[in-house]
Amino acid sequence: MAGASKPRLGLIGFGAFGRLTARYLAASFQVIAHDPAATDGEGVATLADLGAAAACPVVILAVPVGALEETLAAITPHLQPDALVIDVGSVKVKPARAMQAALPPGVRIVGTHPLFGPQSARDGIAGFRIAVCEVRGAKAARRVAAFCRRALTLKVFQVSPEDHDREAATVQGLTHLIARVLLKMEPLPTRMTTASFERLMQAVDMVRHDSPAVFHAIERDNPYAAGVRDRFFALAEMARGELDEG
Amino acid sequence: MAGASKPRLGLIGFGAFGRLTARYLAASFQVIAHDPAATDGEGVATLADLGAAAACPVVILAVPVGALEETLAAITPHLQPDALVIDVGSVKVKPARAMQAALPPGVRIVGTHPLFGPQSARDGIAGFRIAVCEVRGAKAARRVAAFCRRALTLKVFQVSPEDHDREAATVQGLTHLIARVLLKMEPLPTRMTTASFERLMQAVDMVRHDSPAVFHAIERDNPYAAGVRDRFFALAEMARGELDEG
Repeated sequence: MAGASKPRLGLIGFGAFGRLTARYLAASFQVIAHDPAATDGEGVATLADLGAAAACPVVILAVPVGALEETLAAITPHLQPDALVIDVGSVKVKPARAMQAALPPGVRIVGTHPLFGPQSARDGIAGFRIAVCEVRGAKAARRVAAFCRRALTLKVFQVSPEDHDREAATVQGLTHLIARVLLKMEPLPTRMTTASFERLMQAVDMVRHDSPAVFHAIERDNPYAAGVRDRFFALAEMARGELDEG
Repeated sequence: MAGASKPRLGLIGFGAFGRLTARYLAASFQVIAHDPAATDGEGVATLADLGAAAACPVVILAVPVGALEETLAAITPHLQPDALVIDVGSVKVKPARAMQAALPPGVRIVGTHPLFGPQSARDGIAGFRIAVCEVRGAKAARRVAAFCRRALTLKVFQVSPEDHDREAATVQGLTHLIARVLLKMEPLPTRMTTASFERLMQAVDMVRHDSPAVFHAIERDNPYAAGVRDRFFALAEMARGELDEG
């Protein structure tokens, strides 16, 4: 059977992003997913207990950044000595440190951040972006990058966790903060709209359904996010002052 | 000659928006433009002195909102008693009042706000939006609305100046304020970008070249803009407080 001959891949977490991951990896792997909340593999994964998923040669952690440490503690006893562990969180410095600290020395570690989500990936992911960070094992990082490029046709950026978080603090930190404020201002106008306002609303719509956990990871678990926020608000206050003045 | 038989239309102001206006009205009118700074009608208008432009049966004021009152004073002596005067400013309450106060009683007045600019109109204006406000003369407003709909294939919203400014305070006030702050934060990331961040950047790019006069009209001459800003900043401060707290 073709399915049985594919390499096994453990997927810890079968939420919105876990399911998206399984959908695109099912062509290349037999996906063994674990998630206490999941009841159906949706044709792209076989649900299993934590031990079975964690014992695969490749293990992807698709859990919220806030749940990463407890997940690492739970999977460690089941990992193969030379397993490859990959996370997919929206920030990279903190998870890289947590994985380094928790996982046995033979385990190779790669951090990834797919710069898209279930909303934007609705019509496919070809040409979308992913950041790949070497954490432990240069060869493993290159393999993951090559797979993303060739099999998933993603645009790959190999960067350090620090460089990633520095850019993401602006890219995601600002977008989510602005979107969150605009969502609180709803209902917003829909009649006399301009092209630029419509783009702004499209940006809002793309993150509208992101979970509070994603928002918190982006804003709180990124060591550079508070600095970007401070800068944005300082400049905004300056612009506001100039306007209210005259 | 076909050109000579078209009705004459006076255009006061031949800046970026004046030229855009002439480009789309040249098919239906002989455009007589006046602008001390212009040296070339660019094939869509005949440059003339203020008196000649203001003496046309229809006169469009394509000047900054801040220059409207002095423009009204300058054209009044030249206007035909039953002229139709139309402004194209980004706000409508203040110009409507100024035109009501300054223009002789027989002159009909229509306020318009094309919800697009030279940037967004680069590939045509079909389907774009315009607000049309009756200021003096219901029939004149209906005629302008019908022309915009049929000859220019615009989507027309007939609203009061107050309703216009209330929506525009959010649509334009927020977009321009956010864009202005983001422009001050440049250079912004271009590598690890998300789809939502890219939409945000597209919104910024669309207003990047708008003049300070446009920004000031939107933020200062709209009676509702300060209230929208206050609400945006209050909500932003709340979100920021929640994030910096825990």
